[in-house]
Amino acid sequence: MIELIGLVAGALTTSGYIPQIYSVIKHNSAEGLSGLFLIIMTIGISLWLLYGIIQNSLALIFANAFSLFCLLVLGFYKIKDYYRKNQK
Amino acid sequence: MIELIGLVAGALTTSGYIPQIYSVIKHNSAEGLSGLFLIIMTIGISLWLLYGIIQNSLALIFANAFSLFCLLVLGFYKIKDYYRKNQK
Repeated sequence: MIELIGLVAGALTTSGYIPQIYSVIKHNSAEGLSGLFLIIMTIGISLWLLYGIIQNSLALIFANAFSLFCLLVLGFYKIKDYYRKNQK
Repeated sequence: MIELIGLVAGALTTSGYIPQIYSVIKHNSAEGLSGLFLIIMTIGISLWLLYGIIQNSLALIFANAFSLFCLLVLGFYKIKDYYRKNQK
């Protein structure tokens, strides 16, 4: 039971990024996302991934690899925003 | 060492919400945040909090209680956005 709660929690906090990516791609902008939020989260999730690799935990590795991928997509749009702004 | 990586990872993925809250309060809008992202994350983090309470893990409880508080603040601004839109 307790492990089920952990699994569902992990699935949710990982997949939660999907609608955020959808929203950013739809508007072709990550304007409302804080760049610092993305940077801190990306470093944090990378460390969780490292933690999972050292612990040899497939669940941690898959969940955090997926979250990291999502954060990199969001970061890509954020960088695009900055370039667009600077060109104006 | 491995526990240190976990601690730093947890501290980062928790405190990452602070600049996002700062950005939302500054603009008085959570326009760029996906509502579904906030809903899924809030449920996910609540389950992580429940998991921490059952596991009696103070680290999990503190980290997720703080994240939950941050998500509720962001959700509050998102709801404010919806009301504002509907009034127009």
